[in-house]
Order: sequence, then structure tokens, then C-alpha cells
Amino acid sequence: MPSFRPNVAAMAPYVPGEQPPAGAKVIKLNTNENPYPPSPKVMEALQAELSAGPAPAERLRLYSDPKALAFRQAAADVYGVPVEQVIAGNGSDELLAMLMRAFAGEGDAIAYAYPTYVLYETLAHAQGAKIVTHDYPRTFALPEQLFGSKAKLVFVASPNSPSGTLYSVDQLRTLAQSLSDGVLVVDEAYAEFALSTALPLVKELNNVVVLRTLSKSHSLAGMRLGLMYAPQEIAAGMWKVKDSYNLDRLAIVAGAASLRDTEWTKANVTKVRATRRFLTNAMGALGLEVLPSQSNFIFARMKDAAQAAGAYRALKEQGILIRYFPMRLLDDGIRVTVGTDKECEAFLAALGTYLKG
Amino acid sequence: MPSFRPNVAAMAPYVPGEQPPAGAKVIKLNTNENPYPPSPKVMEALQAELSAGPAPAERLRLYSDPKALAFRQAAADVYGVPVEQVIAGNGSDELLAMLMRAFAGEGDAIAYAYPTYVLYETLAHAQGAKIVTHDYPRTFALPEQLFGSKAKLVFVASPNSPSGTLYSVDQLRTLAQSLSDGVLVVDEAYAEFALSTALPLVKELNNVVVLRTLSKSHSLAGMRLGLMYAPQEIAAGMWKVKDSYNLDRLAIVAGAASLRDTEWTKANVTKVRATRRFLTNAMGALGLEVLPSQSNFIFARMKDAAQAAGAYRALKEQGILIRYFPMRLLDDGIRVTVGTDKECEAFLAALGTYLKG
Repeated sequence: MPSFRPNVAAMAPYVPGEQPPAGAKVIKLNTNENPYPPSPKVMEALQAELSAGPAPAERLRLYSDPKALAFRQAAADVYGVPVEQVIAGNGSDELLAMLMRAFAGEGDAIAYAYPTYVLYETLAHAQGAKIVTHDYPRTFALPEQLFGSKAKLVFVASPNSPSGTLYSVDQLRTLAQSLSDGVLVVDEAYAEFALSTALPLVKELNNVVVLRTLSKSHSLAGMRLGLMYAPQEIAAGMWKVKDSYNLDRLAIVAGAASLRDTEWTKANVTKVRATRRFLTNAMGALGLEVLPSQSNFIFARMKDAAQAAGAYRALKEQGILIRYFPMRLLDDGIRVTVGTDKECEAFLAALGTYLKG
Repeated sequence: MPSFRPNVAAMAPYVPGEQPPAGAKVIKLNTNENPYPPSPKVMEALQAELSAGPAPAERLRLYSDPKALAFRQAAADVYGVPVEQVIAGNGSDELLAMLMRAFAGEGDAIAYAYPTYVLYETLAHAQGAKIVTHDYPRTFALPEQLFGSKAKLVFVASPNSPSGTLYSVDQLRTLAQSLSDGVLVVDEAYAEFALSTALPLVKELNNVVVLRTLSKSHSLAGMRLGLMYAPQEIAAGMWKVKDSYNLDRLAIVAGAASLRDTEWTKANVTKVRATRRFLTNAMGALGLEVLPSQSNFIFARMKDAAQAAGAYRALKEQGILIRYFPMRLLDDGIRVTVGTDKECEAFLAALGTYLKG
């Protein structure tokens, strides 16, 4: 029997949030999807690609563009970054994995504040890298110990998940400048819902990369589209560890069309933010301790772990999926995605009933 | 300036075959795409997924199935393997990368016979693994030195690229049984065009995995769909190193529909094989030394490297793309994909003119 690498044999797989079968009657507020559909331009672009050529879907027999240029050019145009500094990923998860492979060898340190996106840990284990973590305080301010880190990679999700807290450009600049020779990875999966972005740091410093995804703000979780903005030398190296054809033809055209419809994204983000304010206030009124969210979800602490876990279970029984993390520093809270007003009202009603019961 | 891992800094990226812009007037016989369109069932499945829900492409806002069950179940049904033993990849390239990450640590050996699919080398460099190669003889029979290998992974492309040569189930069984504790990876990207498959060995032995792709036989290179068939324990471990949502929603439904239309695949494979016979004979008649191909391409040796490189350039000038490998043991040959009869006739005419000129 062949043996896996020891680090792989010892590790646990990443467990994604529950995905109920398509068509199941649930209110799905557990994996931070956008409640609004993608831009109609996405459908137009997909149909154009599918109807090109003499036979149905004829073009799919040909390889996709290994450079994903149409998608990257749209990103370059919309975000004002040279196209050479944009790398496209099969979701930002793939870009995180690429960074790990490019910079962290076996035994090399990577660092982040805990709790955050669990995938950083999973990817470090898969690589055999050493994990250095520092606990976030209850307020989720950046821990002092991250500054001056000697790690090869320092990950900061901003806004962070599951806290929803944002880190300022000034703080992130100071952090990046304090690193020995490491790369600061600013994971901006939720940045479109926030008040600031670290994107300017990519131009300013040679050790900051910023990740984006079209899963949340662009309503395309199902198409797996991620973006990395990196300084020239880092971008050039990332091509070596990228799968040649990592995006398929339909993902490339969908991503390009979605990015270019900035009005659509802006309108949805505005709606999500309005609902977020309403939801924040209403959860506070129910007595929960709500963290100030700059993303499309809200983390709120309850009386204790038993109450929070109970809320998750009670809501699930009623077909309302939210996220509960049975983990240190998080187990007294629940995370709920900002859905439509109607979905959030149903959530609030069920939560209210649970709290009274 | 942050530094890449030494192995990554030192390595060259994989260079995929040329992809001319869509709509360019070329006869594209350089990357082994299928000349025939995918099954009409693929278009039907894509349209069903895109029209579900109240808004256009509504369902794309939701994450895809991390288990890609619809696609894997289709593979299990069609190939008669339990679904638990089927892993889906974003192309078989991703599955090769996953195997490398799961089994080969820094400094661990991986082995293969040279020349073969260049990506094995690229992935080993990215991982920092040690590469052990043994030259194929001119006939492309499996080198004796591979047997008894102590490598963690032994890669055999069967049919091999760019030679098109097939390795028998008996030979591959003997090879797998001879390994110390390594996994034999049988890369069957072109198996549908061949007379045999190593798939039975997955049931028989605990150290053989077989990879497939929908890029060639199923005319879906543009959708990035790969499959791995693995013994239970290997399959279970692969989930740890897999990106959670590695296939998007459209790829999953396209892949499932394509696999289930076995008649369509069979009909196209039959056509490709017929054209392969005609092309083999015609290239032989032009004086080339044609290797017996079990795939959808043909490798043929010419007088010398100068003549072969010249043929590549002369054909490219006329808008006919074939593949030339400026590499040891290959530089006196050309590789041509089996296209339609008409495309192959144009290729033969241009090659004939070049040889006369």
C-alpha cells in the first residue's frame, strides 16, 4: 500500500459549508452567496460563446485561453492595474494554493491571526508548511505579534471571515513593511462590500498581493472566478505554478462580462449594504452582540456556545441555513449571510422565536 | 523583495501549445483537440442549468457541488467503477498536480520514461521533487529501468504523448507490482482511441490510478474536465488536497451529459480512427517513419531535425499548425493531430509540397 506524505496523511480535509441540493426549499444564509442574480450580460456572453460555430457548443472542443486574457483585461480595466499584474484563478481558493506552493516550502512558516478563513490552515498542512498563529482579540483588531513576522506568507482576510471586520490600508501597509522577507496576502473576498481596499498597496510595495473573487459581490460563486493583483515580479513567478488551462471557456467569458457591468455590481452591493444595516440593528435589538460588518455577512455573539449551537439547529429545522463554527473563540456566535430583506426577516422571526422559547 | 522557493525560482513554466485567437483562419492540428463538436446533450444540459430560476443564469450565484456528484456518478456508471473511487478534476492536469502534492514531498523521487508529457517535469519542479527519468528507446517500448523503481510516483502516459504508443495491461500490471511503495499513475488522456485500458488494474491492485480527460475523446478541451479512478484508500486521501469547489456548475453538467452520450463519443472515435489509418498510410507514402499510433495524433520522424523544424515552419506559414518539439529524441519528428479528412488532406498536400521544394 503506497503512503501519502506524512503531512497529508495527518491532515483533515477542508469542510465547505453545506450545499443543499438544487431546488431544495431552504433559505440559504450559510455560505455568503449573493442573493441577487448575476448581471444579464453574463448570460449574453455565455450564449454568444455557446452559439459560435456551426454546431451547438462547437467552440468547447477547443482549449480555453491559458492566459484568460479577456477576463484579466476586464479586471485590469475596471481596477486600474496593468494586465501583466493580474492573475486569474479557478476561484480565489486556487490562487491561495498557488501562493502557498510558490513561497512556502516544507517547514517554512506561514502566519495569520486566528480565527479566520479555515482554508489557510488546510493549504499549509497540504504543503507541509509550519503554521504560526496569533489570536485575534474579541474586537478582531490585528494582533501586534503579526507585525515583524518572519513568515514567508502572512494572510489577512480583510474584511475578515467570519468576523466581517475590515483592516485599514495604513495598518496593512505598516504590516507589510514590517515583514522580514515575506509576502502579505490581503484576501479581499468581500472587499466590494467594504469602505476601503488595499489595492493601492500593490503599486506601492513589492510584497503585497491582493485577492478578489467574483463569488460574492458578482453573484458568480458557481463559476469559480478569482483574481490576484500582484507586483510585477511576483506576478511573473505565479505563472510557473499555475495550471496551464485553469479557467474554462465559459468561466472566462462570464467573468469578463460580469466585471465590466460595474453598474450591476454597484446596485447589488448597495442593496446588500442596506439590508446589512437593517439586519445589524435587528439582531442587536434581539440582544445579540453584533460585530460591525464590512462584508455581506454578520457575525454575532450569543449568551454562550450552547445557545449559539442551539440557534443553528433550531433554524436548520425550519429550513434556514446559517453557519455555526464549533471552534475556539467562535463557538458562542453565529454567522449569517445578508440575503434579501425577505430572507432576513424570516431569519429574524425564527431567531426571535428560538430566543423566546 | 520576497523570494520564491528555490525550486520555483529555478524552474521554467510549462509552455502549452499555441492557441490562435478564436475565429483565426488556421487548420489547428497542434494540441490534439477533437475535430468534431461535443454531444448535443452538452448544449441541452448547459441550457437547462442556465435557464433554471427566475433570472437569467440565476443558479450561477450559488456554489457548485464540491463533490461534483452528477459528473462523478456519470463516470461511475459509464466505466463501471464505484463512485467513491472517482475523483473529478479541473482537467486531468489538476489531478496530476494533486497526485504530486499528495505523494511526493521535497526531495522525494518521481519517475517516468522520457520523452513524455512535459507537465510531469513541470509539476515535479514546482513541488521540489527529484526527477528520475529513463530514455525510451526509438520504438518507445517501456524501459526496463522503470521496473522496480523506488519512486513515490511513476507516470506512464498510455497511449504516450507524443509517440502515440500504447502499453499493455500486462506490462502495466508487472510494472505496478514491481514498485517498492510507489503509485503507478497511468495517464490515459487518449485511451478512448486505443485498443486497451488499464482501468481493470484499479480494482486489482492498490497502487494503480488511472486518469482520463474529456478534452480529446469527448470534444470538451474548453471545459476542463478530468477524471481519476483510484483504489479506495488513495481516493479517500485525494479529497484532502483537492480545492473544495474545483469544478464550476457548467463544467459539472456538461461533463455528466457528455459522458452519458456514449454513442456520440463512439461515433467520433470511429471517425478519428479511420482518418488516423488514412493519415498513417499517407505519411508513410511520403517517406516519413510513422510510429504506430493508438491515439488521436501521429508522431512521425523525418530525415533530420532541420527537415522536421522546417516542415513545422513551412506549414505554419500556410496556416496549418502542427507540433514540433525542439527536444532531445524528438527533434527529428513532427506531431500532427488527427483532424477531419479535409484538414488532413490539406496538411498532406502542404507537407508534400514542402518535401518536394
